[in-house]
Amino acid sequence: MRILLIGASGTLGSAVAAELGQRHEVISAGRQSGDVRMDLTDVASIRQGLAQAGELDAVISTAGRVTFAPLADFAAAPFGESKHTLGITDKLMGQVNLALAARDHLRDGGSITLTTGILAEQPIAQGSSASLVNGAVEAFVRAAAIELPRGLRINVVSPNVLVEAMGDYAPYFRGFEPVTAARSALAYSRSVEGLQTGQVYKVF
Amino acid sequence: MRILLIGASGTLGSAVAAELGQRHEVISAGRQSGDVRMDLTDVASIRQGLAQAGELDAVISTAGRVTFAPLADFAAAPFGESKHTLGITDKLMGQVNLALAARDHLRDGGSITLTTGILAEQPIAQGSSASLVNGAVEAFVRAAAIELPRGLRINVVSPNVLVEAMGDYAPYFRGFEPVTAARSALAYSRSVEGLQTGQVYKVF
Ligand SMILES: NC(=O)c1ccc[n+]([C@@H]2O[C@H](COP(=O)([O-])OP(=O)(O)OC[C@H]3O[C@@H](n4cnc5c(N)ncnc54)[C@H](OP(=O)(O)O)[C@@H]3O)[C@@H](O)[C@H]2O)c1
Ligand SMILES: NC(=O)c1ccc[n+]([C@@H]2O[C@H](COP(=O)([O-])OP(=O)(O)OC[C@H]3O[C@@H](n4cnc5c(N)ncnc54)[C@H](OP(=O)(O)O)[C@@H]3O)[C@@H](O)[C@H]2O)c1
Repeated sequence: MRILLIGASGTLGSAVAAELGQRHEVISAGRQSGDVRMDLTDVASIRQGLAQAGELDAVISTAGRVTFAPLADFAAAPFGESKHTLGITDKLMGQVNLALAARDHLRDGGSITLTTGILAEQPIAQGSSASLVNGAVEAFVRAAAIELPRGLRINVVSPNVLVEAMGDYAPYFRGFEPVTAARSALAYSRSVEGLQTGQVYKVF
Repeated sequence: MRILLIGASGTLGSAVAAELGQRHEVISAGRQSGDVRMDLTDVASIRQGLAQAGELDAVISTAGRVTFAPLADFAAAPFGESKHTLGITDKLMGQVNLALAARDHLRDGGSITLTTGILAEQPIAQGSSASLVNGAVEAFVRAAAIELPRGLRINVVSPNVLVEAMGDYAPYFRGFEPVTAARSALAYSRSVEGLQTGQVYKVF
């Protein structure tokens, strides 16, 4: 298969590249790294990156930034001025726009796999915007799955906090049982190499 | 209790007003109707409406518009040009901004109750944007609940399609078992008059 992986240089993405690269052609993408340059917050750049990648069997995103901050720091604010803006434009609409644009570049039966995280279900302090964004992506994926044409499939992987990220994240995720990026990468393999659609693969 | 109900003139809101109005002072609000005029898409109007309502024990939203359209009509697009814009600015960020602003107007132990719908979990054709928005609101509520100060609580009610709305919605919800607005209103009573927080009360 030809697989485009946005976020391939990241903690999670590099493990996904290692897992799928054993059996498939993985084309890496990112804003400042990869075979293809693509910024999920810029629709023209998404389209250009997809065109550059050529015909694909799978598109995977392991990208997506959000704002972590205490709920007390989130004020009611118009969209562009809201602390929710980064998460909504990057991890939420960046991934949704990638999925919408990818439809035209995937072969029949091809798949789209997005990334959320355990905060969709299990909240932590400072995580309300991350939870919002993850919940939105998961519900979108369940719904988009039933309307995609040509046997196209869409799933999402929701990892627990990663072992490799505990250096930064440990204080926020006390008591959570971290998973390795390599174990999380198996869920991307299930999504791409399996036949299910509309699934949230929880790695927790 | 003094309860501010945004969307009080609507199909769902009028049933909530009838249920809670038996035991409490319900202050109705909407863009073009109600004791207080408030547009959830306008932060200044949210603040003004809350100030006008005075000290409150509960804030309820039974408002929130989304775009229903085939997934094929959703193209990758920048935020303001995306078909997702209405749902994100109105039902999603409108309700989130209401919750954030309401913190300053609620008495200790007061509650916020938002509205989603069955599409958060069970998708239908043309419902992908509604699902996205509902999923976002539910995950936000789970997360905000653990960080709210002064014993403030936040929950969400997720009704099935309403009996009263089947005139318009029946073709989209074939096989769904509609619930009455009056039965759905009980869930708002549980949220306001109970003591739980971070709950999704499913009326389906
Ligand atoms: N780390 C964890 O513990 C954990 C747990 C659960 C879920 N997640 C989720 O998994 C995803 C990846 O996390 P990570 O820790 O692997 O992140 P990371 O190490 O910071 O890597 C992010 C990757 O995405 C690319 N990227 C960032 N913004 C982008 C954009 N706007 N457009 C295109 N590419 C972009 C980066 O490359 P460039 O800089 O070159 O763009 C990089 O390759 C995130 O959605 C995160 O929320 C992480
Ligand atoms: N109907 C169903 O079958 C059903 C099922 C599940 C969930 N829901 C959800 O329940 C909610 C209410 O649905 P409904 O059928 O009762 O709607 P509705 O009959 O159209 O009533 C909407 C109410 O909200 C007010 N409103 C609309 N936009 C507003 C805004 N931007 N700011 C403030 N107030 C606003 C309206 O008053 P003004 O026009 O004066 O502003 C009206 O009082 C929606 O979120 C809907 O998705 C509905």
